[in-house]
Amino acid sequence: MNIVEIIKKKRNGGKLTRREISYLIHGYLDGEVADYQITAFLMAVYFRGMDDEETINLTEIMLNSGDIIDLSRIKGVKVDKHSTGGVGDKTSLILAPQLASLGVFVPMISGRGLGHTGGTLDKLESIPGFRINMDVEEYKKTLEKVGCVMIGQTTKIAPADKKIYALRDVTATVDSLPLIISSILSKKHAEGAEALVFDVKIGTGANLQDEKESEKLAKQLVSVSKKFGTKAIAVLTDMNQPLGNKIGNWLETEECIEVMKGKKVDDLLKVNNVLAGAMLLLAGKAKDIDEGEIIAGQAIDNGTAYNKFLEMVEVQDGDVSYIKDYKNLKRPAHSHKFVSEKEGYITKLDAFNIGVASVELGAGRKTAEDKIDYLSGIILSKKCGDKVSHGEVICELFAENEDRIINAKEYVKRAIEIGDEKKSQRKLIIDIID
Amino acid sequence: MNIVEIIKKKRNGGKLTRREISYLIHGYLDGEVADYQITAFLMAVYFRGMDDEETINLTEIMLNSGDIIDLSRIKGVKVDKHSTGGVGDKTSLILAPQLASLGVFVPMISGRGLGHTGGTLDKLESIPGFRINMDVEEYKKTLEKVGCVMIGQTTKIAPADKKIYALRDVTATVDSLPLIISSILSKKHAEGAEALVFDVKIGTGANLQDEKESEKLAKQLVSVSKKFGTKAIAVLTDMNQPLGNKIGNWLETEECIEVMKGKKVDDLLKVNNVLAGAMLLLAGKAKDIDEGEIIAGQAIDNGTAYNKFLEMVEVQDGDVSYIKDYKNLKRPAHSHKFVSEKEGYITKLDAFNIGVASVELGAGRKTAEDKIDYLSGIILSKKCGDKVSHGEVICELFAENEDRIINAKEYVKRAIEIGDEKKSQRKLIIDIID
Repeated sequence: MNIVEIIKKKRNGGKLTRREISYLIHGYLDGEVADYQITAFLMAVYFRGMDDEETINLTEIMLNSGDIIDLSRIKGVKVDKHSTGGVGDKTSLILAPQLASLGVFVPMISGRGLGHTGGTLDKLESIPGFRINMDVEEYKKTLEKVGCVMIGQTTKIAPADKKIYALRDVTATVDSLPLIISSILSKKHAEGAEALVFDVKIGTGANLQDEKESEKLAKQLVSVSKKFGTKAIAVLTDMNQPLGNKIGNWLETEECIEVMKGKKVDDLLKVNNVLAGAMLLLAGKAKDIDEGEIIAGQAIDNGTAYNKFLEMVEVQDGDVSYIKDYKNLKRPAHSHKFVSEKEGYITKLDAFNIGVASVELGAGRKTAEDKIDYLSGIILSKKCGDKVSHGEVICELFAENEDRIINAKEYVKRAIEIGDEKKSQRKLIIDIID
Repeated sequence: MNIVEIIKKKRNGGKLTRREISYLIHGYLDGEVADYQITAFLMAVYFRGMDDEETINLTEIMLNSGDIIDLSRIKGVKVDKHSTGGVGDKTSLILAPQLASLGVFVPMISGRGLGHTGGTLDKLESIPGFRINMDVEEYKKTLEKVGCVMIGQTTKIAPADKKIYALRDVTATVDSLPLIISSILSKKHAEGAEALVFDVKIGTGANLQDEKESEKLAKQLVSVSKKFGTKAIAVLTDMNQPLGNKIGNWLETEECIEVMKGKKVDDLLKVNNVLAGAMLLLAGKAKDIDEGEIIAGQAIDNGTAYNKFLEMVEVQDGDVSYIKDYKNLKRPAHSHKFVSEKEGYITKLDAFNIGVASVELGAGRKTAEDKIDYLSGIILSKKCGDKVSHGEVICELFAENEDRIINAKEYVKRAIEIGDEKKSQRKLIIDIID
């Protein structure tokens, strides 16, 4: 087999055989295929796509390039959620303990922030001491004991994806459906879950800009998962404005804690509990998503989700006192109140620009080497549809230095539109695909 | 400036600025841009193309990445020819001495065989001792003394092209118009010629398969050259069957010698003399191509082209006695006569498959490390339109071992079609663009 012929075949719109994809991936891992050949191939895939069979083969070959965790010794249904990424998208921190408190095992392997979107691992690490590195045995033991566990990807899981993902990030080949699908599913199917719920974001703050592409992504995540014998549901949710009111690593963790302690953050709770409902349905603990949503809401209302969260934090070496100490408001040195220059209604609160602003404030990385400032971020006092008067605070920006706030303000300014009339609101839950 | 944004811009169909192209090329030469980023970019260019301005900028930046040879001290017009590559395409070996014998300086920097097509350097090196490496000063002196010089690309000429070409070859990004044009012209404009004639091949044996693309290539080679102040003419010639009757490195050199000594190989002579005519026109030595063609023919008929060839070989350390010793027929150990299985007319003699067969015989390289066998190749006894009887020889294959002949026969079989009726012949000179 010849790597140039394989690249050319895909470039010319051909369909690759399983053997050709295997040669490509294993050749790359073995050092026979060069990274400059893989990136040319990835760009060809960006333009030509892959059909279902090719995508399934690519996923399976990447999955089998590493360890697949066997959770069969844990008696009970294992369900996980994966989000395609958004701004203020923090449901994982609620869902894992919430579902665990309802008797569903949640084995969750998460990622870091990427571009303008946040990452679960960074949010967890905003809790002092929280440890996201574990070997497989400890991962299993923690899951068995607590009912949920949240860690980072190990080098042994889907190493082909790890290497390829690093190249995609620096060659403008991230937003390609078959590459996204194979990357997500090769990791997710390695972590041992029997059922998966996908939160596919649609809107300016989503990683995939095209709405039709997002729908296709949702459908393919479900259909490809089923080919692997994994039950799956995809929920398409709005990401035109940030989810919830807080953006930033500790700020998002704080908002999750507040919600689990009873605070009503409507959009966050709605998306969270629909996802939880879908997970409960797949776990056989609810007859449909609606019933699951109600059951999930009760686990928050009666405090069991919050208690489970504290238990998980403690087991994973996080500082529980830091969470409980609500008198110590954790805020960085500098802040700025962004006020409205006129009276009206918020018609736009663009998630992408808010996300970029929060990176500027220190909540995200511009290069892989950047250090995150856990306390920085944005608190929204207003959301789309809210009335605002002249001089009233729309949001507050937090950072460790003034320069960061000056830079971030530009993006916040771009994000906000105020109109004379209240615009009809977008649907929060756009579609459910199963 | 950000390399990922530049790749993404081209990927999305955007037009790159001169600054962006410069950042890309110089970043690559400086090591700031990785080869795996360049190859993703090249594949994006394959799909999205480049407009005239981008192509000109890319060419100029690659040209200026290295030395530009100054031939102004040589008094006289300097004209070169470049072919896009074909099978049996050997005109350079005739044209250089032929034009030099007519008082036109021919500074020729050539390449090696690529895929199924041969390369001038390999043909020259089939003459024992012939030296294709020279520094710039010797190159100038030889040109001044002999009137022509034929060497290989030095590392100092268009180093950006050298690096990028190596990547294109192994990532299926060779056949992209802006990449072909910038690669050819960045080298050709560095060698010091004031006028260029392009032989753009059309047909199965050409490097570019699409006929429309070849026409576009011819037009752009001429228009971009003119932007650089270089006079230019492109001749579109047929490459559906090999040019001339001999294919292989020494075999082609031998055929050129035979032609210069008076043998009438019709198609080879026609293409050669039209190209020579165009060169004479650009050099101001003919009022049009037709007149130039006649003048060129005389330089062969009166033996001055052949004498100039011997002079060039001698000056470049080639063994002139090897050329003159016609009693020693230089043939490898094994040969095979390919005969017709029926009576009829040759309707197809597919240049691509004949080219591949000659690579199989040892006349070309499958990998960059392969050693060429200079004596191997194919002699055609018949060409398209010729009548053939049952059992009559169509061609003879030559190689150093029997296995090579067995492999090559398969491709020769694929190349030949015999029909009951004589098909109308394709035009040899398809179009002339100036």
